[in-house]
Amino acid sequence: MAKVLVIYESDYGNTKKAAEAVVEGVNSVNGATATLKVAEEVTAEDMLSHDAYIMGSPVHMGCMDWRLKQFIDKVCSKLWMGDKLVGRVGGVFTTGSGFGSAGGGCEITMLSMYNNFAELGLILVPLPKCTPGYKDGGLQWGPYARSASPTMEQTGTSKESLEVVKNHGANIARVALATKGKELFCR
Amino acid sequence: MAKVLVIYESDYGNTKKAAEAVVEGVNSVNGATATLKVAEEVTAEDMLSHDAYIMGSPVHMGCMDWRLKQFIDKVCSKLWMGDKLVGRVGGVFTTGSGFGSAGGGCEITMLSMYNNFAELGLILVPLPKCTPGYKDGGLQWGPYARSASPTMEQTGTSKESLEVVKNHGANIARVALATKGKELFCR
Amino acid sequence: MAKVLVIYESDYGNTKKAAEAVVEGVNSVNGATATLKVAEEVTAEDMLSHDAYIMGSPVHMGCMDWRLKQFIDKVCSKLWMGDKLVGRVGGVFTTGSGFGSAGGGCEITMLSMYNNFAELGLILVPLPKCTPGYKDGGLQWGPYARSASPTMEQTGTSKESLEVVKNHGANIARVALATKGKELFCR
Amino acid sequence: MAKVLVIYESDYGNTKKAAEAVVEGVNSVNGATATLKVAEEVTAEDMLSHDAYIMGSPVHMGCMDWRLKQFIDKVCSKLWMGDKLVGRVGGVFTTGSGFGSAGGGCEITMLSMYNNFAELGLILVPLPKCTPGYKDGGLQWGPYARSASPTMEQTGTSKESLEVVKNHGANIARVALATKGKELFCR
Repeated sequence: MAKVLVIYESDYGNTKKAAEAVVEGVNSVNGATATLKVAEEVTAEDMLSHDAYIMGSPVHMGCMDWRLKQFIDKVCSKLWMGDKLVGRVGGVFTTGSGFGSAGGGCEITMLSMYNNFAELGLILVPLPKCTPGYKDGGLQWGPYARSASPTMEQTGTSKESLEVVKNHGANIARVALATKGKELFCR
Repeated sequence: MAKVLVIYESDYGNTKKAAEAVVEGVNSVNGATATLKVAEEVTAEDMLSHDAYIMGSPVHMGCMDWRLKQFIDKVCSKLWMGDKLVGRVGGVFTTGSGFGSAGGGCEITMLSMYNNFAELGLILVPLPKCTPGYKDGGLQWGPYARSASPTMEQTGTSKESLEVVKNHGANIARVALATKGKELFCR
Repeated sequence: MAKVLVIYESDYGNTKKAAEAVVEGVNSVNGATATLKVAEEVTAEDMLSHDAYIMGSPVHMGCMDWRLKQFIDKVCSKLWMGDKLVGRVGGVFTTGSGFGSAGGGCEITMLSMYNNFAELGLILVPLPKCTPGYKDGGLQWGPYARSASPTMEQTGTSKESLEVVKNHGANIARVALATKGKELFCR
Repeated sequence: MAKVLVIYESDYGNTKKAAEAVVEGVNSVNGATATLKVAEEVTAEDMLSHDAYIMGSPVHMGCMDWRLKQFIDKVCSKLWMGDKLVGRVGGVFTTGSGFGSAGGGCEITMLSMYNNFAELGLILVPLPKCTPGYKDGGLQWGPYARSASPTMEQTGTSKESLEVVKNHGANIARVALATKGKELFCR
């Protein structure tokens, strides 16, 4: 049994929709269940009682939403101090409406989220390009589900991009099941 | 005349001390003056009325303090939308007490701060290794003034590391003076 | 007078085409002239005799082409050791045919190129979103002129994306003219 | 049985020494064996016949050694095109003698190596701070075994920093054993 916590913030509902697709992907895997929470409500106990974490953010000025950073500073830093989550599993996803067609800061946003998970000692799950839906919302670090055109007309996240988001959730759940309960890291 | 805004957040006073060294460096340059503000008090008007910005943060889980990110999301994103600061000048600095001797996330923290300034269209000023004090607190992106030993005993930022921080302020002030009032970017 | 060296590598001619657009942009600025060279032919003397550098690479597995890295290791590292280029000006551009619509590693590629220039002590010029052509090939760090569709059908770099590349060259030339000959950095 | 390929380049023997410590760590895990190769000799067949990859580089101007990048461009890019290594395991390590005490580009060097592994679809193994030896050579992304003082006097990699390098090898071997032969990723 693997318990996966999906942590997000959303402005206009697009990241929420993506987070729900992640949940659907996790729940599609035998033996895995997902919990969905906004970052502002996630406690240390929530973190301790789950096996894997998938964190999603809109891309805001090339970095995660400030409310996710607040959660990291207030909740995750203490778990890091105590080495409490070492050997669990993590992954990330983003949405965005950045100006231009070149990604608009999604990559460095994902890296700042990876960084928190690396410090926590989580095994990191990237997004292989063979994942169904990748061409419409995939990046090597995780899904980037655009919610607007290159000129920033709001379109909402497309059905195609949500497919890769869902599959990312399933991938992470399977890695969590494969590694759960094993002593993987030297202490 | 170049007006430089120094924006920071501080937990235990170390980043504040570094911010004051930046201010000293700026004010040491003929024709430059510095204003010092915590991020939570910086308004869009403050940004518009200055020519250069130096942003400093403690390294928290490999990213800037959440209060700086809040400032970026609430204040900078609108200035980005309106292309209001294009062609001005920016630089960053950090402090930290990260575990271990290898930097503890200072570099990716600085990159997330650079990213905001790149989006705003600021000319970015790195830190050359010939800057006096570099060996005690320098990194190519800007100063990293450690405030603790590798095993996290609090030591406060050293006098030597504050020297490079001060010089970084002077460097940025001079770049601001050299570029001020010139039409540098196509529109 | 500002002399700008455009350094690139190209596999199928797309980055070469983008490099030629950069040259055109530089030469459009009064008082600026561009030299175009593949990285493998750039010498330390070339670097020393120019005021600004614009480096372009195809995105290969989320990093610059290995021939550019070879140039950095063999030519730039010695210039860094001697602090020879401190205070000059730098910028970057990329092309790519990455799978998917989310940018395919262009951002981290640009950051690795920025890093070399930061170490050399160059003033870094990003790409403001108000630059004409940005929507078709802009990213905050510099232009990303795609040369293929999200499913990797070769299309060549578009006329629109070359416009922003050209303007980026002009921006960098103007920053080089504004800062040339000034003592900007403490030593 | 997990077969781990350790890929490196070395200038003065420090990265070689670190690579040998990784090998020792891998071989200390029951059921795991390591192969050691310089990047220039690693073939696609070598990659296909192993289950995990640990890539090590000296930090050169804030990025991996050009010979590792050449290996990525020539060997890994084709494996990426064919989705040949998806679901295997990867980790990285670095050595360095960068000027100053703040890490000198080790972090962005590691990220460029992570990026290649993320594109290949490898599960990524960071370095938890509770790993024995972390305080002398640990960073969240992997070990950084310094081989010189902050003022660049050559010291060689310390015994303490090689301890964390060795443990990193063991960690990655265990993750490879836990995940081997399982269908983890949607296709």
